[in-house]
Amino acid sequence: MRISELSQTSGVPTATIKYYLREGLLHEGELTSATQAQYDDSHLSRLALIRALVGAGGLSLAATRRVLDQLDRTDLGIHQLLGVTQDAILADEEPVDTTDAAELVADLGWTSYPQAPPLRRLAKALTALEASGLEVPRATILAHAQAMADVAERDVADIPTVSRPAAVRHVILGSILLEPVLLALRQLAHIDASARRFTEE
Amino acid sequence: MRISELSQTSGVPTATIKYYLREGLLHEGELTSATQAQYDDSHLSRLALIRALVGAGGLSLAATRRVLDQLDRTDLGIHQLLGVTQDAILADEEPVDTTDAAELVADLGWTSYPQAPPLRRLAKALTALEASGLEVPRATILAHAQAMADVAERDVADIPTVSRPAAVRHVILGSILLEPVLLALRQLAHIDASARRFTEE
Repeated sequence: MRISELSQTSGVPTATIKYYLREGLLHEGELTSATQAQYDDSHLSRLALIRALVGAGGLSLAATRRVLDQLDRTDLGIHQLLGVTQDAILADEEPVDTTDAAELVADLGWTSYPQAPPLRRLAKALTALEASGLEVPRATILAHAQAMADVAERDVADIPTVSRPAAVRHVILGSILLEPVLLALRQLAHIDASARRFTEE
Repeated sequence: MRISELSQTSGVPTATIKYYLREGLLHEGELTSATQAQYDDSHLSRLALIRALVGAGGLSLAATRRVLDQLDRTDLGIHQLLGVTQDAILADEEPVDTTDAAELVADLGWTSYPQAPPLRRLAKALTALEASGLEVPRATILAHAQAMADVAERDVADIPTVSRPAAVRHVILGSILLEPVLLALRQLAHIDASARRFTEE
């Protein structure tokens, strides 16, 4: 298909597609004349991925590029791929002291590694919590960790192993796009739990 | 204390404090002369709240103002308060079709109400998921909802009922500041679950 049709089918404006091509986020089409190129389903699929990362995922263009760079790697197992994806997404975060976060993860008995990017994310989140003066019982944090372990167990079980590209795609999109789903579900569950605790029929 | 000490103790620059005062986010101190005012613990506490909402919470100044406006209301029960807090945080989101999201919540048997702000958030998140082409089994979404119900149950049980301001503060801060904690925990749990599924000892 030509670029106009690629734009129509994907819903991405032609100018944006040209920008992604210039920036190397999207691979070039096949030249059919000096001024025209043909695009195919691989372009549609890559465009959907870029839109998911930049749009719903809220990733910067730099982070998106880092994540997409992982897509074409064939030297990593799925487990390593998850790690480099997290690295790519969270690389913008500045270094922080992760001692408390690492201790919490150790208490949970989870496999981890020093300077894992989500350790930095957790450390920052726990620091903000403490700075706010909000008192959250340790038991609550541990219970929340257990709930997220249930979530992660199922996320990982859902990763298809039929083909490597399918697995990669699932890891990247699932990591990012289920975050807003989970947060919305928590807020909706708050309404339900609060109705049961604080209102009488 | 004087503004310089308020700045030192809170870690918020004097210029930022003056900005919050001008914008009405922070209440005025008690004037002790034509050019000096005294501040107290109530200012420290409010500053910590503003920093938590704007900084860690990533709220816009407009959303922060809407949330803070709820703090001083005495006409609402805790359950209503949770609703108006969610409204205040999510009011920037544009209207979307919430039919599918509402159906999911009904399937879960959760109490909700039409146009609840998190329904819009869930609807947007589900739409992005679908647009990405990622296939997430319905059973996974339902299991994730159950995990978030466990989280919400405990969040709501933690709300102190000793005093109304304490409850309000807990609802607002807990809603917002536990979000990044949960997302970081999910990513750390991914590392653990993926290590168990995809690597051999």
